[in-house]
Amino acid sequence: MAKSIAKSGVGQPLAIGIDIGGTGTKFGIVDRDGNVLFSGEISTRKHAEVNTFIHDLHTALSELIEKAGGIGRMKGMGVGAPNGNYYTGTVEYAPNLPWRGIIPLAKLLEDKFKLPVTLTNDANAAAIGEMMYGAAKGMKDFIMITLGTGVGSGIVANGKLIYGHDGFAGELGHTIVIPDGRVHQGTGKKGSLESYASATGVTYTAVEMLAKSKEDSLLRKVPKEKLDSKAVYDAAIQGDKLAVEIFDFTGKILGLALANAVMFSSPEAIVLFGGLTKAGDLILKPTRENMESNLIQVFQNKVKILVSHLKESDAAILGASALVWEMK
Amino acid sequence: MAKSIAKSGVGQPLAIGIDIGGTGTKFGIVDRDGNVLFSGEISTRKHAEVNTFIHDLHTALSELIEKAGGIGRMKGMGVGAPNGNYYTGTVEYAPNLPWRGIIPLAKLLEDKFKLPVTLTNDANAAAIGEMMYGAAKGMKDFIMITLGTGVGSGIVANGKLIYGHDGFAGELGHTIVIPDGRVHQGTGKKGSLESYASATGVTYTAVEMLAKSKEDSLLRKVPKEKLDSKAVYDAAIQGDKLAVEIFDFTGKILGLALANAVMFSSPEAIVLFGGLTKAGDLILKPTRENMESNLIQVFQNKVKILVSHLKESDAAILGASALVWEMK
Repeated sequence: MAKSIAKSGVGQPLAIGIDIGGTGTKFGIVDRDGNVLFSGEISTRKHAEVNTFIHDLHTALSELIEKAGGIGRMKGMGVGAPNGNYYTGTVEYAPNLPWRGIIPLAKLLEDKFKLPVTLTNDANAAAIGEMMYGAAKGMKDFIMITLGTGVGSGIVANGKLIYGHDGFAGELGHTIVIPDGRVHQGTGKKGSLESYASATGVTYTAVEMLAKSKEDSLLRKVPKEKLDSKAVYDAAIQGDKLAVEIFDFTGKILGLALANAVMFSSPEAIVLFGGLTKAGDLILKPTRENMESNLIQVFQNKVKILVSHLKESDAAILGASALVWEMK
Repeated sequence: MAKSIAKSGVGQPLAIGIDIGGTGTKFGIVDRDGNVLFSGEISTRKHAEVNTFIHDLHTALSELIEKAGGIGRMKGMGVGAPNGNYYTGTVEYAPNLPWRGIIPLAKLLEDKFKLPVTLTNDANAAAIGEMMYGAAKGMKDFIMITLGTGVGSGIVANGKLIYGHDGFAGELGHTIVIPDGRVHQGTGKKGSLESYASATGVTYTAVEMLAKSKEDSLLRKVPKEKLDSKAVYDAAIQGDKLAVEIFDFTGKILGLALANAVMFSSPEAIVLFGGLTKAGDLILKPTRENMESNLIQVFQNKVKILVSHLKESDAAILGASALVWEMK
């Protein structure tokens, strides 16, 4: 019996990868080759208290752990979370999470699961996933940008993730692209990339443009509570002019931010990931054009904009799980 | 005789450091401990042809080389230049230099001096100088920003300079801070940091503010051709309101750019260097304030803004010379 387990590889250690987003938390059990063997999801948003979140995550994950051969096979747990700090294992002042202040998330998970836990920024985890298994395989200089509820980023230079002196590097979503621009509901700052180039930002742009323009649009028939980036996409692919303009505007701002990032760390590629990338060329074309037009000559026509080809949610889970293999 | 030379250290190898700026080119002969033994300067701007520049540089440097014990003692030459590429030894499309296109500067210098040459971005060279001998000694994550005729930057993360995939990383001066803002005379791009936070930018701001405002000002008595950042400084320290406003405006824009840089790579410190830093708190105070006000909470009150304490021009010469010691 023991022999047959070894043969089928059932005895090999596995890693747990957890990706905590503003809306939902995805988790998976991953083998060393990057196969997500089991996965699941719970809501983040509905847990106002971190303790009930940990409790529900434990319940959901325990089921998967049993299926995968029990806790004894788990080498550890890697976590990607907004404002996650690699050095301290804490999540600090994350504007898109329901929990305020400094949350010792790695410690809470360690105590609950009795497993070693490594934590980092969710976009950093995604960047590691892309570098190990995805579009950035073999690259030494690239930037990962996640366009979801918020905008996250992970920067790799000289083959290494940049954590910065305090573990918080890579918050491209909070850089200011339009001084005195739109107020970010979470941070109170004006004109940050995230307030425009996230799913939330696209919704705001739609509301603003519908109010300002007199033009007819399919979006005028969408009930207010259903007006989101998906509705804008559905209208745009039917050729709705205003919906196309919303993506143009979003791409223009994203392109400007990418140009600034390129002139900073000169990456070989920018890997985009997340909900907004589903809009394809509707957003990618204006993004690419405005990136190029804001670059000085020396950077022009060099930087690839790639869309992650990892299965949705896998990049972050894979990246988070990859942290486990790096544990001592 | 040979013995006495060895005793006095005269026989030790020396390095040549060259800092090519938009206005002038500074050079020095440096020992391993970072002492600039001999130094000089020639004009960059007046050489429309790179060949006459190389010729004049050779004439001026040869004199210093003789004084320092002859070419045999020179281990090599390190060069910092705008848009200098560490990987290829070329200077490419540098908007602030008189030479257009791609200039194989390292090769030209090697052929002329018969010495091995390493070249990088001028601000990268300055960053290495600060890391080895200056304000960033011992730091693993910091950003160097040079505020001269132009604005340059060198980014150090994980203890290493970021060159990027193509050798051009660190062009913070060309990042866009005011979309559709002031046109940069060299690049044609609108609203870049350099078009505001350089000596040239301050002059433009002065011209604009004097035209727009009706307020009395000492600057109104300055002849147009003498209106520069120095004149603005002289007026500001006498309490001239408009001159103080010019620095406020400049610091506000610089502070915004610093906030964006901090949220990108999360440095321990930002080291400022160059002419504009002489304005002291006139520019540092609004810079610091506006940096802090644009940072999200997790980055606030953490990042030091330091002014280089290396002797003027030494940082870049020292940094450039440090490249020589890294040669194989």
